[in-house]
Amino acid sequence: MSALSEGLTQIVIPLASLVGIGFALLQWFLVSRVKLLSQDSSNGYKQKLIESDEEEEGINNLDISIKCTEIQHAISVGATSFLFTEYKYLGIFMCVFGAIIFLFLGSVKGFSTKSEPCTYSQGNTCKPALANAFFSTIAFLLGALTSVLSGYLGMKIATYANARTTLEARKGVGKAFITAFRSGAVMGFLLAANGLLVLYVSINLFKLYYGDDWEGLYESITGYGLGGSSMALFGRVGGGIYTKAADVGADLVGKVERNIPEDDPRNPAVIADNVGDNVGDIAGMGSDLFGSYAESSCAALFVASISSFGISHEFTAMSYPLLISSMGIVVCLITTLFATDLFEIKKVSDIEPSLKRQLLISTVLMTAGIAVVSFFALPSEFTLFNFGTEKEVKNWHLFFCVAIGLWAGLIIGYTTEYYTSNAYSPVQDVADACRTGAATNVIFGLALGYKSVIIPIFAIAIAIYVSFSLAAMYGIAVAALGMLSTIATGLAIDAYGPISDNAGGIAEMAGMSHKIRERTDALDAAGNTTAAIGKGFAIGSAALVSLALFGAYVSRAGIKTVDVLTPKAFIGLIVGAMLPYWFSAMTMKSVGSAALKMVEEVRRQFNTIPGLMEGRVKPDYANCVKISTDASLREMIPPGALVMLTPLIVGTLFGVETLAGVLAGALVSGVQVAISASNTGGAWDNAKKYIEAGASEHAKSLGPKGSECHKAAVIGDTIGDPLKDTSGPSLNILIKLMAVESLVFAPFFAAHGGFLFKFI
Amino acid sequence: MSALSEGLTQIVIPLASLVGIGFALLQWFLVSRVKLLSQDSSNGYKQKLIESDEEEEGINNLDISIKCTEIQHAISVGATSFLFTEYKYLGIFMCVFGAIIFLFLGSVKGFSTKSEPCTYSQGNTCKPALANAFFSTIAFLLGALTSVLSGYLGMKIATYANARTTLEARKGVGKAFITAFRSGAVMGFLLAANGLLVLYVSINLFKLYYGDDWEGLYESITGYGLGGSSMALFGRVGGGIYTKAADVGADLVGKVERNIPEDDPRNPAVIADNVGDNVGDIAGMGSDLFGSYAESSCAALFVASISSFGISHEFTAMSYPLLISSMGIVVCLITTLFATDLFEIKKVSDIEPSLKRQLLISTVLMTAGIAVVSFFALPSEFTLFNFGTEKEVKNWHLFFCVAIGLWAGLIIGYTTEYYTSNAYSPVQDVADACRTGAATNVIFGLALGYKSVIIPIFAIAIAIYVSFSLAAMYGIAVAALGMLSTIATGLAIDAYGPISDNAGGIAEMAGMSHKIRERTDALDAAGNTTAAIGKGFAIGSAALVSLALFGAYVSRAGIKTVDVLTPKAFIGLIVGAMLPYWFSAMTMKSVGSAALKMVEEVRRQFNTIPGLMEGRVKPDYANCVKISTDASLREMIPPGALVMLTPLIVGTLFGVETLAGVLAGALVSGVQVAISASNTGGAWDNAKKYIEAGASEHAKSLGPKGSECHKAAVIGDTIGDPLKDTSGPSLNILIKLMAVESLVFAPFFAAHGGFLFKFI
Repeated sequence: MSALSEGLTQIVIPLASLVGIGFALLQWFLVSRVKLLSQDSSNGYKQKLIESDEEEEGINNLDISIKCTEIQHAISVGATSFLFTEYKYLGIFMCVFGAIIFLFLGSVKGFSTKSEPCTYSQGNTCKPALANAFFSTIAFLLGALTSVLSGYLGMKIATYANARTTLEARKGVGKAFITAFRSGAVMGFLLAANGLLVLYVSINLFKLYYGDDWEGLYESITGYGLGGSSMALFGRVGGGIYTKAADVGADLVGKVERNIPEDDPRNPAVIADNVGDNVGDIAGMGSDLFGSYAESSCAALFVASISSFGISHEFTAMSYPLLISSMGIVVCLITTLFATDLFEIKKVSDIEPSLKRQLLISTVLMTAGIAVVSFFALPSEFTLFNFGTEKEVKNWHLFFCVAIGLWAGLIIGYTTEYYTSNAYSPVQDVADACRTGAATNVIFGLALGYKSVIIPIFAIAIAIYVSFSLAAMYGIAVAALGMLSTIATGLAIDAYGPISDNAGGIAEMAGMSHKIRERTDALDAAGNTTAAIGKGFAIGSAALVSLALFGAYVSRAGIKTVDVLTPKAFIGLIVGAMLPYWFSAMTMKSVGSAALKMVEEVRRQFNTIPGLMEGRVKPDYANCVKISTDASLREMIPPGALVMLTPLIVGTLFGVETLAGVLAGALVSGVQVAISASNTGGAWDNAKKYIEAGASEHAKSLGPKGSECHKAAVIGDTIGDPLKDTSGPSLNILIKLMAVESLVFAPFFAAHGGFLFKFI
Repeated sequence: MSALSEGLTQIVIPLASLVGIGFALLQWFLVSRVKLLSQDSSNGYKQKLIESDEEEEGINNLDISIKCTEIQHAISVGATSFLFTEYKYLGIFMCVFGAIIFLFLGSVKGFSTKSEPCTYSQGNTCKPALANAFFSTIAFLLGALTSVLSGYLGMKIATYANARTTLEARKGVGKAFITAFRSGAVMGFLLAANGLLVLYVSINLFKLYYGDDWEGLYESITGYGLGGSSMALFGRVGGGIYTKAADVGADLVGKVERNIPEDDPRNPAVIADNVGDNVGDIAGMGSDLFGSYAESSCAALFVASISSFGISHEFTAMSYPLLISSMGIVVCLITTLFATDLFEIKKVSDIEPSLKRQLLISTVLMTAGIAVVSFFALPSEFTLFNFGTEKEVKNWHLFFCVAIGLWAGLIIGYTTEYYTSNAYSPVQDVADACRTGAATNVIFGLALGYKSVIIPIFAIAIAIYVSFSLAAMYGIAVAALGMLSTIATGLAIDAYGPISDNAGGIAEMAGMSHKIRERTDALDAAGNTTAAIGKGFAIGSAALVSLALFGAYVSRAGIKTVDVLTPKAFIGLIVGAMLPYWFSAMTMKSVGSAALKMVEEVRRQFNTIPGLMEGRVKPDYANCVKISTDASLREMIPPGALVMLTPLIVGTLFGVETLAGVLAGALVSGVQVAISASNTGGAWDNAKKYIEAGASEHAKSLGPKGSECHKAAVIGDTIGDPLKDTSGPSLNILIKLMAVESLVFAPFFAAHGGFLFKFI
């Protein structure tokens, strides 16, 4: 039996969630103390200058504050209006897909309301399939709503904090850093705590109906993961197309043709670009990581429910995944204090180490936290279900599973940093290749992206081997959870990036001095790297989560082996490996076409609006916002359909074995495409920043802005935009979502699937 | 029993080979009748002008002939000297690797010289493992030598024909086409016939020792495939780096910086560039396709030897793969006549349809040919071995297996054409994206490459499913052979491309008129598409061949299932899927670095040699040739080692199951990377040509040469060079070679492998 009693478990989990939410609100409160219209320069912080050789520029300049407030308002309105339009479509999708779930799962036993004998817990009676269909649908809707809420809240705090970060940048880089970081933390903690709380409450509510039928209970709960991930798909793809159409369009005319700086207020696409950062990088990322978190929890819970925990109804042991997440919230809370209170950022070069330290501190603390949870929450020995056989497992085995996931995440994060930060030779080599033009820049960048796959894949492979060997599919699921246990910190440093990026944009648009822009640029450069690290985490955890979901699917569909030597499985494997390419083709082309439209509109405005280039007249920002909105809403449908329909079609027509092949193929191929695309894009972006910053002799020899080398670097950066912010990160969701959807629909496919092969 | 007697089989196969060789020599003779120093304008063809509105330019201009002869000589000397240097290294490699094969396989039974009981043919005694080790080594060496010979002969005829094509272009596009095409045919037929003959002779010689031990005989013969493919690896990678380092280097300085045309004699890298076409696209491609051919034959023979054919010693049925290839030679011979004698090329727009017709004619004829061979060579019913179980198969099942492979090849070829020819909208869209610069060109090109994967993968998947279902792994092997049965025609139209490319180069260097260059450009544009089609075939057949080899490996290693749900197989799968990326990273980076060196050298010559730019002084061609040679020989080692060592390391340390996972992963991931890389590169090349040719209103609006759009297109073309000619095509060999190597070493891994897991 577990050392922790069921009663205590029932207190600890919601308590941890509430602490997380409380901490997020505290951070929000601290950010809100930066007043936008600063009638009062004493705003609660110690007013000592952080970089003593820099003066407090225009702290009392009311004009600048008003301008910043206006711009922030415009961005916020644009982002909110886009998200609401997007949510309207997603609302329709949720209703339709909810109905599909209900109908497919209800039909498994012909909509019968009779109770059935349980599959695993032999001798007992379980609730009817119709009930599972109903509760799966409810869980799906709850997951979808929580995902939407996570994205929305993230966007809100980001657009609340960006101008505040700009204003704080007048006082020094340290102040600005803290504001941006606290805002990121608001998002991180809200998301982690909300996700946990909703899941916890749902389980307890569902239990009122299910009682002792835990098989049915945790089967239905998997709908939560599906809901979370399907919203994330549209958030990532729609947001990704939005932000990159605007960004590429703005850059191609502004930077390349008109030779005006990035974020110049004369550029008609500039507001759309900044809105894009918030709807793509913030709201999309939030939904994505929430999806991973929900899915790995659901996969772990489902696998556990058919193990000895589930059969013998040990609630505390069953809740091990939730307890790990609860511990994660506490650990991240302590970790955050290291960045905001225990260490001070005194100069630009402190920023990146401080963010990297966050990763290390949270990982080290969490390792101890996992040990505590594993020791108290698990019985010292128990049995897990392993595709038809049983496996004896000890509690310290699970400690290793979670810990190896956690540390694999750190390795992936640091590798990503190495390949995308311009402090190291890979990006510097890419920058150097700009000497001979854009072509060699692109060739070197692609090679870098391919190369950056090696270490993460080995890390994932080792994590899989160890956790699989120790605790079968349950081991994989908790390893994924381990990687995601520090999600609050991960998201904080991740959201920090786009907030700083926006802050820089606002500084430029408000016409603030070059010095302010330099400070926000420094924040942003570090943010680029952390965004790449965040993407590394997202894809690494997605790989583990998908494998766990895959295992759960295989269990639920009653498959004993997925043998590559059967034609059914092999064709699934090769077609599955193709899907990431098909998907990327769609998203890349969508960004390309939308960007072409944006370019035409921006050119049109520059050519037809007299006085625009001279800055006397304001451009028509709204038209550019509309182009991005329309393009992203229209273009997200085909890739979305590809992902949502593939499991349904393959499962129904070709059956469970081929679908298993498709999932495995998409997983092993998609993870490579995603990592290489993200890192290539990140590297090009930072190679360009390296040349612009000119911080070393080598960098100076390539620059300055406007040189031939710089122009070549800008081309690379533009190509990288859709790779790193649209196709790459969306692929996580492709592999996860197809797996969780297969899991949810597994009973239907097992009962009625394989239509086509039956006829042949 | 088969309708065809053993005696007849023993006549038919060598006869077909000799007919093929004879036909190749006849074509060579016809090409040789174009005299390089044309004192006599009547050179054996009807001297009627083909395009009547064009005059015979400078037919009797001795100067031009001398110049062409000189340039051809320089190219031929450069190519020969490179190949000999390469072969010196390969000779060392062959000896070392031959020794490894002997030692590893000999150690399986501890170098015992005692005969063993057979594995499949129960009750009989088979030859000792040491004999198999010895004969495998011999077969390896024979395969390697044949591969080297194939590449060398191809290069010889290509460098023999290029200036002749240029000279014939003075008489019209039809004459030039026939010369280039006949030369391609020489290569195609020599390769197909030689490959078949050496294999046939080896089997008969080995039989003198093996007698009735067909298990051992055909096990040893697999070494032939390994030899062929390992040479192809270095040929493809080394040649690919050579050609693209020169090409990229020449273009970056010549076209982009100095604004001189392609192949301008003032460019110091121009000879290296033209040599590269011959050593990379011709010799490399020849070795590659020979490797595929040898491997699929070996895989089919091995699988057959452990089926009822082998057990009951039916030689004709066993030789079914060889008979299919014999029929292929005859069919291709007839097909060739359609291009050279039955239809005449009267205008530029006839070229591409004529080449495409070759594919269609050979496929249709071959379908009938397969039916004949299947009916006469196979018993009406027989048993195949299927991973531990037996499978009843009928002869018309095998007809379908071979035919579906053949037609899948045609579909892949036509799909490739659609995505890479500038006659269709995909490439035109890419060209159109150049309006907004290089970045959108690259984004659209990448998206096109990703998209072009979809149909080929479905074609391969269907071919696999059908042939797998009908005749297990033997079905896959003969499907691969079906795709390769028209290899002579495939190679002819493939080799035609680089020959035309060289012809254009020679015209430019010899200072011939613009009209000649336009004609060779038209040949070359069609050649670009056929080269892409050839690459499509190469990768499609590689996928099937690898799967067949994979099946043979699994049988030989005694594995019953490759279950993705075991950690050993899954980590193999994900790491295997990563290998194509690692490999591409190496080859891309190699081309990039070598090109940078070439750029420096070319710049140095332009800057330091007075009078070079004005054309008064000749550049130092030899130095550029040396840079390409050194770079390719040095840089081919790491990717070569990756491919050759992976199976040995994985098999020895992790065992046969993990290795099976690695092979499956590399196959399903590599095929996608290879197709998308080849097609992206082909599309960029033809998008550039589309703008240059300006044949439509749309194309004119993007051009002319030197416009901003054209510059953007040149950047795309340069990026595409290493993708389409180095990384992409080398990946075929990666997946094939790892599979055949695993097959050859399977007994060793099964006996002594899995070292590391045994210790844990």
